[in-house]
Amino acid sequence: MAKVYESILVSKPDAVPTPDCGLWTLDCLAMKAHRVREEIMYTGEQLRSLWIYRTFGVEGDAIAWFAGPCDVSGEALVDQVDAAAKDSIRAARMMHFVVEHFSGDLNHAILRQRLLVCMAAEVLRAEISGLRRVGDDLFVGEKKLSVSIATASPVSNLIHLAVNIDPTGAPVRACGLQEFGVDPWRFAERLVAAYVAETERMAKARCTVRGVP
Amino acid sequence: MAKVYESILVSKPDAVPTPDCGLWTLDCLAMKAHRVREEIMYTGEQLRSLWIYRTFGVEGDAIAWFAGPCDVSGEALVDQVDAAAKDSIRAARMMHFVVEHFSGDLNHAILRQRLLVCMAAEVLRAEISGLRRVGDDLFVGEKKLSVSIATASPVSNLIHLAVNIDPTGAPVRACGLQEFGVDPWRFAERLVAAYVAETERMAKARCTVRGVP
Amino acid sequence: MAKVYESILVSKPDAVPTPDCGLWTLDCLAMKAHRVREEIMYTGEQLRSLWIYRTFGVEGDAIAWFAGPCDVSGEALVDQVDAAAKDSIRAARMMHFVVEHFSGDLNHAILRQRLLVCMAAEVLRAEISGLRRVGDDLFVGEKKLSVSIATASPVSNLIHLAVNIDPTGAPVRACGLQEFGVDPWRFAERLVAAYVAETERMAKARCTVRGVP
Amino acid sequence: MAKVYESILVSKPDAVPTPDCGLWTLDCLAMKAHRVREEIMYTGEQLRSLWIYRTFGVEGDAIAWFAGPCDVSGEALVDQVDAAAKDSIRAARMMHFVVEHFSGDLNHAILRQRLLVCMAAEVLRAEISGLRRVGDDLFVGEKKLSVSIATASPVSNLIHLAVNIDPTGAPVRACGLQEFGVDPWRFAERLVAAYVAETERMAKARCTVRGVP
Amino acid sequence: MAKVYESILVSKPDAVPTPDCGLWTLDCLAMKAHRVREEIMYTGEQLRSLWIYRTFGVEGDAIAWFAGPCDVSGEALVDQVDAAAKDSIRAARMMHFVVEHFSGDLNHAILRQRLLVCMAAEVLRAEISGLRRVGDDLFVGEKKLSVSIATASPVSNLIHLAVNIDPTGAPVRACGLQEFGVDPWRFAERLVAAYVAETERMAKARCTVRGVP
Amino acid sequence: MAKVYESILVSKPDAVPTPDCGLWTLDCLAMKAHRVREEIMYTGEQLRSLWIYRTFGVEGDAIAWFAGPCDVSGEALVDQVDAAAKDSIRAARMMHFVVEHFSGDLNHAILRQRLLVCMAAEVLRAEISGLRRVGDDLFVGEKKLSVSIATASPVSNLIHLAVNIDPTGAPVRACGLQEFGVDPWRFAERLVAAYVAETERMAKARCTVRGVP
Repeated sequence: MAKVYESILVSKPDAVPTPDCGLWTLDCLAMKAHRVREEIMYTGEQLRSLWIYRTFGVEGDAIAWFAGPCDVSGEALVDQVDAAAKDSIRAARMMHFVVEHFSGDLNHAILRQRLLVCMAAEVLRAEISGLRRVGDDLFVGEKKLSVSIATASPVSNLIHLAVNIDPTGAPVRACGLQEFGVDPWRFAERLVAAYVAETERMAKARCTVRGVP
Repeated sequence: MAKVYESILVSKPDAVPTPDCGLWTLDCLAMKAHRVREEIMYTGEQLRSLWIYRTFGVEGDAIAWFAGPCDVSGEALVDQVDAAAKDSIRAARMMHFVVEHFSGDLNHAILRQRLLVCMAAEVLRAEISGLRRVGDDLFVGEKKLSVSIATASPVSNLIHLAVNIDPTGAPVRACGLQEFGVDPWRFAERLVAAYVAETERMAKARCTVRGVP
Repeated sequence: MAKVYESILVSKPDAVPTPDCGLWTLDCLAMKAHRVREEIMYTGEQLRSLWIYRTFGVEGDAIAWFAGPCDVSGEALVDQVDAAAKDSIRAARMMHFVVEHFSGDLNHAILRQRLLVCMAAEVLRAEISGLRRVGDDLFVGEKKLSVSIATASPVSNLIHLAVNIDPTGAPVRACGLQEFGVDPWRFAERLVAAYVAETERMAKARCTVRGVP
Repeated sequence: MAKVYESILVSKPDAVPTPDCGLWTLDCLAMKAHRVREEIMYTGEQLRSLWIYRTFGVEGDAIAWFAGPCDVSGEALVDQVDAAAKDSIRAARMMHFVVEHFSGDLNHAILRQRLLVCMAAEVLRAEISGLRRVGDDLFVGEKKLSVSIATASPVSNLIHLAVNIDPTGAPVRACGLQEFGVDPWRFAERLVAAYVAETERMAKARCTVRGVP
Repeated sequence: MAKVYESILVSKPDAVPTPDCGLWTLDCLAMKAHRVREEIMYTGEQLRSLWIYRTFGVEGDAIAWFAGPCDVSGEALVDQVDAAAKDSIRAARMMHFVVEHFSGDLNHAILRQRLLVCMAAEVLRAEISGLRRVGDDLFVGEKKLSVSIATASPVSNLIHLAVNIDPTGAPVRACGLQEFGVDPWRFAERLVAAYVAETERMAKARCTVRGVP
Repeated sequence: MAKVYESILVSKPDAVPTPDCGLWTLDCLAMKAHRVREEIMYTGEQLRSLWIYRTFGVEGDAIAWFAGPCDVSGEALVDQVDAAAKDSIRAARMMHFVVEHFSGDLNHAILRQRLLVCMAAEVLRAEISGLRRVGDDLFVGEKKLSVSIATASPVSNLIHLAVNIDPTGAPVRACGLQEFGVDPWRFAERLVAAYVAETERMAKARCTVRGVP
């Protein structure tokens, strides 16, 4: 759309369309959702700035999701609590979400992450009884269902959330969507739709509130 | 504690205590939770900077809660969508939460508000079947259970969340905690405890994550 | 769009559409352009937060434009250089642009204002020989063609740019679009289209650049 | 100047000069402009924090300019759109501008870059007919005259703008100042003077405007 | 200076001076120090944005100082601890410093205030034995020598520091420069010179440090 | 404390304690002070994000102190003025302070550093006559007593302050605490106590001041 206006502006000034109505909305860089059909092993390398753009050509704030094994350890750990404990993050197959926002700071990223995890619980609750959220983790009983981290890059903020499909290999007691009969792709699409809609709704709320003294 | 060190530093330098262990933690301005025992009618005037400090003497990031009627209309409306629609916010009795954070911007405030509403749903879900969250609202079926707004003051960010106890007088179809047999004070204490703990956990997460390239 | 997903999410989970392609873009709160057909006298009251939303129902970052007289003086002056000089801003008829952005600080607002004025000059140059930009002002020879100010509100940043159509009554030597045979509405639409496109292009640039050491 | 006051303050307190007038202005860290007389090949290595200070000893916000060939490709590309397209940036000789600002964020940097490119067009327009600006690029007809990027470092923001003198070797249709008879050094000095003056004028505007409700 | 370049740029492009050396520094909006010769009663009204500019025509970051009585109470109190205690701030004659910075947030303002008070103590220590600083207060023994507050306005940050000359009328045990034989104007000039030099030195430090991993 | 509430919230909702009084304060991530008993050679590697957490397990804003030699040169220098001069920083034994704050920007870090150095002077003044502070350095006569730097990491701000105990090996004229009979550990504890108390006091000031127009 921008291109259209550029060429109009510069070379065919007479052709600027007069909008029919008073309100005239152009496309913008909306948050995008990108489903990756191939399996990807998550190793922590995916949690870096512009990984979504470089890998899939999707520009701007985005959430990408894919299924695949998980194996993060040593230097690749971003959470220094895990690193200090020499923990690793492993599972045979998880549904991974990588989120990148190009505005805000690390506190925003952590708040958005908590909201994303809350929403994952909202989506899953009907299908998994006994599901509970503790901070950025999901549990069923004492078994861990998910892992998550939020961090900052030089140009953006990033979130990784992964929900076990098959928890085999996890270093702690864990469970997976498979054993609860949850379709991981259906779950993912509902979570993504909800997160993108919530992001949009918060953007509108930001622009329709007055300050107070 | 600060005072103690001041006087030590200035007038009795020999008396500085040598901590026994290597780790030495002083009190700080933690988030505080303040239950108000008297009933207060919420009119929107409570949503201003330092209201909690001026009224209750509680300084710093804080959440205060109280029960009382609600009557906000006209100029007092902070949400300009409501103001544009000439809506009002009314109920015979609600459980009110006023939250003030002295760091962050309006986007932080909106994210914290959504998280607070998610957590209210988490606390209530076991007792109210059919509860659902849509943005910053709680519904049971088609009936509205709560109202909420987040905004900025010149020195802080503020959130108001109110959950109907008795929805009589509400301008839309509404329901209240009373009809579901939920003890509003028990609910409030659990929500407040959860929100303060989440705030603390996020503060720790902020300080134990490394950046990524 | 958000509403659709909300209701899908909450009440009809089976109905979530599977996007056909991997890339799935939702609507967002794009910058909006709103032409006001009635004449409005600009008095400075229009330069306040949410004026565009309250008056026209257009939410989010927006540029509104209208024709009308201009009369700003005394307390209504935002530029304290003018206020100190006891200046006033007057003209019989101007093309007014009011811009509101809900992100960034006052420095962003001033940079955006300069860019807007540069672009006004780019649009007008073909039709007005001898046009020159000095800071946030446009001149033709020694005659002033425009006025502008950028400032901050508690929740947003605001720009006012006004270009004389008929400069009668201006307190300084001035000229207007009329005498150069420029159609003010054609000019306005071209400027608005260019500004919105530039805003979008900058948003994309923000999201496709890596940091440097 | 700072040194003078230090020594006065500490060792010769009696010698503090009483200013003659009421207004007393000290030197400060103004934006500096540094012309580099030797030719430098621009490879992208110059676009890093403190390059101007380390190379020329010029501290603080600064713009440095020099002539030289350009050859940026592969890992050195900062614009990930170019990197994704496996583009390179090449020309036999360009006039390069490297700008570093130690305040603001990446959005400020992009706004400042657009303003710099607008001003380059303002300076060149009298000498090059058919010049047009599209975002951060200058064109004459369909031929590209310039390249530019804005990015962030850990301690500052950086802009590179380069205008072809001799476009030989460019990977796209390009033109250069030479073919239009423009003296590249005269052009550079006028652009730099204008940019520094604009920066100063914006700093003054920032400090003489009141907020609005 | 800006004006000179503007006119050169626009109307006499041939006249741009070629700087003799490679380094070319323009004037900028340095921090300014303004001594007010008339006595002013400080009532709290002076602590508002642009008061220095509106009253004295001094634009940009500035420190103004003057002697006069002090009488602040009720609504005029900015410190809500004082307001809560229904305190007032009074003295027969004080040396007042009003500082305005147009960058940074309220935390910066508080840090700058503490630094200013530390520096006041550094300047006075040679002449007043037993002087001690506690937070933003100066004491001699148990007697209070000064008052101070830091706050934010919509466009700037502000500091008020006042040191008693004659403490008569103070609501607490207090002392003044007079009884220690300190010349208040000499003191003020040395403090102002030191503060402005420190500000400049910090600005340079900001621009000559690299980031760390 | 957070853990307690988590488990209460999720698994034993009936057990939530009703606070006895209206005011209910939870632990938070206060600034921590950590004395390191082993000697460490400071090489500049210690000035990186999360070094305190990774090395000592102390999370959040913290100040750690230890004694040891100092040897920083070449690439390890953070101050580019030193690097440009090919200086090095050396001493046989110093008392080192490493401070990390997880909020604020580089300007905050520099202000905090100046305050820390002011406070070191306040603590030492009674024991060392002729001590003076110049910017971020302490001198006794013409001999340098300390070195300091403030910088930013991707997730925090960092300060290093080191005060000579035995200055042997320093590249400039220097002195040390030893020759003045100052106990370095006593000094360190008093400085740390004062800095932590000041930090807390500023946090309270931040939350008890209203804005001004």
